[in-house]
Amino acid sequence: MMERFQVVYRITGDEKDAYTKAKDICLEQTVEFPAELVPGGLIQDHIVGRIEEFHSDGPDHYQAVISYAAETTAFELTQLFNVIFGNISIKTGNRVEKIELTPALAGCFHGPRFGREGLRTRLGIPARPMLFTALKPMGLTALELAELAYKFATGGIDIIKDDHGLSNQGFAGYHERVEQCCRAVERANRETGQRAVYVPNVTAPYGEIAARARFAKEAGAGGLLVAPGLTGFDVMRALADDDEIGLPVFSHPAFIGSYVVSPDDGISHFALFGQMMRLAGADGVVYPNYGGRFSFSRAECAHIAEGTAVSMHGIKSAFPCPGGGMSIDSIPDMLTVYGNEVVFLVGGGLFRHGPDIVENCRYFRSLVEKTQ
Amino acid sequence: MMERFQVVYRITGDEKDAYTKAKDICLEQTVEFPAELVPGGLIQDHIVGRIEEFHSDGPDHYQAVISYAAETTAFELTQLFNVIFGNISIKTGNRVEKIELTPALAGCFHGPRFGREGLRTRLGIPARPMLFTALKPMGLTALELAELAYKFATGGIDIIKDDHGLSNQGFAGYHERVEQCCRAVERANRETGQRAVYVPNVTAPYGEIAARARFAKEAGAGGLLVAPGLTGFDVMRALADDDEIGLPVFSHPAFIGSYVVSPDDGISHFALFGQMMRLAGADGVVYPNYGGRFSFSRAECAHIAEGTAVSMHGIKSAFPCPGGGMSIDSIPDMLTVYGNEVVFLVGGGLFRHGPDIVENCRYFRSLVEKTQ
Repeated sequence: MMERFQVVYRITGDEKDAYTKAKDICLEQTVEFPAELVPGGLIQDHIVGRIEEFHSDGPDHYQAVISYAAETTAFELTQLFNVIFGNISIKTGNRVEKIELTPALAGCFHGPRFGREGLRTRLGIPARPMLFTALKPMGLTALELAELAYKFATGGIDIIKDDHGLSNQGFAGYHERVEQCCRAVERANRETGQRAVYVPNVTAPYGEIAARARFAKEAGAGGLLVAPGLTGFDVMRALADDDEIGLPVFSHPAFIGSYVVSPDDGISHFALFGQMMRLAGADGVVYPNYGGRFSFSRAECAHIAEGTAVSMHGIKSAFPCPGGGMSIDSIPDMLTVYGNEVVFLVGGGLFRHGPDIVENCRYFRSLVEKTQ
Repeated sequence: MMERFQVVYRITGDEKDAYTKAKDICLEQTVEFPAELVPGGLIQDHIVGRIEEFHSDGPDHYQAVISYAAETTAFELTQLFNVIFGNISIKTGNRVEKIELTPALAGCFHGPRFGREGLRTRLGIPARPMLFTALKPMGLTALELAELAYKFATGGIDIIKDDHGLSNQGFAGYHERVEQCCRAVERANRETGQRAVYVPNVTAPYGEIAARARFAKEAGAGGLLVAPGLTGFDVMRALADDDEIGLPVFSHPAFIGSYVVSPDDGISHFALFGQMMRLAGADGVVYPNYGGRFSFSRAECAHIAEGTAVSMHGIKSAFPCPGGGMSIDSIPDMLTVYGNEVVFLVGGGLFRHGPDIVENCRYFRSLVEKTQ
């Protein structure tokens, strides 16, 4: 017998319409074939999706739990995501709420290499929230970015990433930037005795990503930033799985927001930024925090945090990395939502707080430490 | 001076809000930095996006034409798409309507290797609409799929693709399926004297896609099917650009629908299925036709067809391949929308028309030929 995994969908419509849609999902995500022509036996009994539960989920919304044979996924991330949401992404009123893999299917994916615990061990930060910032603005030279990285590390920031728009532009070419920023952070670490890391952006053309990641590893980078909406999720998964690279991976949400902007369509914050990012190997998941310049609500952000830690049969947890227009002053409130299991990403806010960037970083760090 | 390309956005809101959003796009898509802190000189004058035009586009909607320095894209498809729609994908009320590259920037991308004309030449079909179908349902063996491929080719179908859910499942493993289907279509071609092609699905894990594509080429496949929503757009671009492979590429819309389901967010049908698929190398673009089981309107489909052919400084045109629950009987009406520059994709409908699949294909073909 084929083992079955489950996907929880939220469907918009009255009971009859929603049930029809649920039956449609069963066909659309597997055989894409007229129901009356589906061959009996294996295909009818196992390959076609199956409605396991169906119940009301508030006015004009229903929740359908649909199971699929694990074999339909070919045990590949690309095809797993296709079964979960491929064709129905083009239909309205279907939203992926939650993914429930079987232990065997989850075992086909390594997930985050480090996870929350591994990242804490690696960075030598056993309990407090971590501090994360970005090198910007685009247009600075590699040397200017490295100087910023030095200041951030000197001021006590733990993780210093490229802004995700920094790729291989002429004004700060990838190789020069990575070398200089690695050196700058090492210099600061020697002076402070801390273990700050530099995380370059390796969102890049298909044929260059692996080489950029290896270059980063050799130069002494402490992690990799990838925007899976731009590269594809499986590219991030492959980087996370690469034993020669062996670096923590941070996902960036660029180009992926369309999956969550409509409340009745797409994928839930919990599943997309929690479960799917973990399946694709992210140790840390960057997303826009509530109250910043983006539109996620406090509840949605809390769901993301849940999704980064929900039990997934041995797939490690990831750190939520809320950011995006946060100010330093929002940290105390965020601690009430996320607790200590969070990486605070402050970008522009670090420049805004006062004229001395090192002092701003120290203030940011002190705010976090004061709460401990 | 840096050359600038343009993106046309449709923004939701009253005039003041929409203009504020347009200014925000200029920062968000480039420097991600507080406006008042952006350094003067190069960054302020060139790197930050610039509003070139701003005007009403109907009640509570405005159109903003924003220009960006070509250098911000690093001349990479991943970063180009990031500048166009990376961070603002997470905000609501911004929609990419149209992309206007400069000749030099367009020249950084090869686009479709064959385009409409090249595909017609390759398949020996100078003028009429082409006929396209899919091997399904998932769960059939490689031998059963090959037998179907033989029947489709015998009945006069021009392009026979894998259903996009066929990857490397145990019931029809990739290598066996591709070999058998290639052989079956060759056998039919010898008998009919036609030039039908088999197009396997190479949507696959990052490390395996190139090998699967090369295997397909060696086995005699006539094209490749890729779902860029699952693999990443740049993976499709790399396959299209690979001179050793040199096969036509067909894009599948799985997992990409979320960009178009909300009328005020995401990307227009014209830009996503027309312009972006071409930049990413698709010779043929599969999408759901109006009137089938998906929700695209007739106008949206006509815009897709426009986007597949709009002038893009030497980037070849692609064939619109409308499908998805179409029936054979919808063809005459579709000809009035698409004219002859179309590939008709009929899947389940070919099985539904009558019990003899070869006869159904002949009927499908005759309908198309009758119109010529």
